[in-house]
Amino acid sequence: MTQRGLLIVLSGPSGVGKGTVRKAIFEEEGIDFRYSISATTRKPRPGEKDGLDYFFVSREEFENKIQNGDMLEYAEYVGNYYGTPKSFIDETLASGRDVFLEIDVQGALQVKTKMPEGVYIFLTPPDLTNLRSRLEGRGTDSREVIEKRVAAAKEELKMMINYNYAVENDVVSKAVQRIKAIITAERLRVIRVLDQIDN
Amino acid sequence: MTQRGLLIVLSGPSGVGKGTVRKAIFEEEGIDFRYSISATTRKPRPGEKDGLDYFFVSREEFENKIQNGDMLEYAEYVGNYYGTPKSFIDETLASGRDVFLEIDVQGALQVKTKMPEGVYIFLTPPDLTNLRSRLEGRGTDSREVIEKRVAAAKEELKMMINYNYAVENDVVSKAVQRIKAIITAERLRVIRVLDQIDN
Repeated sequence: MTQRGLLIVLSGPSGVGKGTVRKAIFEEEGIDFRYSISATTRKPRPGEKDGLDYFFVSREEFENKIQNGDMLEYAEYVGNYYGTPKSFIDETLASGRDVFLEIDVQGALQVKTKMPEGVYIFLTPPDLTNLRSRLEGRGTDSREVIEKRVAAAKEELKMMINYNYAVENDVVSKAVQRIKAIITAERLRVIRVLDQIDN
Repeated sequence: MTQRGLLIVLSGPSGVGKGTVRKAIFEEEGIDFRYSISATTRKPRPGEKDGLDYFFVSREEFENKIQNGDMLEYAEYVGNYYGTPKSFIDETLASGRDVFLEIDVQGALQVKTKMPEGVYIFLTPPDLTNLRSRLEGRGTDSREVIEKRVAAAKEELKMMINYNYAVENDVVSKAVQRIKAIITAERLRVIRVLDQIDN
């Protein structure tokens, strides 16, 4: 029996470096993720291939997929739909391969309602912890600046609660090692191990 | 604010190699666990130190600790009590250090009812998965032998369900790396990260 693949969702506030970390992970040895391919209603650009860069579909097809619950998440942007088809992810996971999805916070929350068994990783800016005491200890920022930064950090921490793991992106290579440890550990979770064993 | 330490409980069927794996973990670089010290009512042997090898206590003290709920688990063996005091573990975790407990399956289950927030790792013999199909494929064992081995494996799998992680002890160094990945990942769990952050 093939062990079902893991759905790994990397998300976090904009500007935190999700894309950089994702690229670095895909360059690691021994990593064999399938990257989740989005569907879109926009026309292919020269060189773009259907099923490789995107699944190119008509507006009607896209809206049917939404109706049928096949869009894990979607958004409309400049008159075109963009979304994550569930069927592709389901089939890839069933074949035993892991799927890696890098996505913004809104999208990740939508995905989680439909695939709660995934591994949800929140990438955080460095120095989020003990922010106030560090800023105060440094003594270089005005009270107003400190309050503003702490308020912004609080907003990010509020998002974090929806995830399984929080990984600080202080140094990209360290963030990558942490994510690899998470994936190793998740594969060893009893609930997943028992899934793959003979009855 | 100090991050609370992790309670890491390594357990598994007898003969699986818990002690060997535990020793190998303590020899790893960057490992700073506190090993859980047991309490006992037996007399110290020459060279044994109170609070280092054991907490040596009287029978009355031990029974008081049981009454007060300070024994995470205990057993009586050849007329003496042996057990794991909760207060020592609590204080060590509060100081920010991790505590490592290597213990049999009965003991681990007792500990878990009192400290469910710990990380419970079940060490399994190699080749537990797909056992029947491998034995049958090999074609060297009688039906009776196969059934016996599968029945024994099932008993071990039943125990596994009470743990968070299952680590195969195929090669000690690999088991150690898996356990280290689990500990890295557990420290990144959102629930623990939020615990250590300013309000």
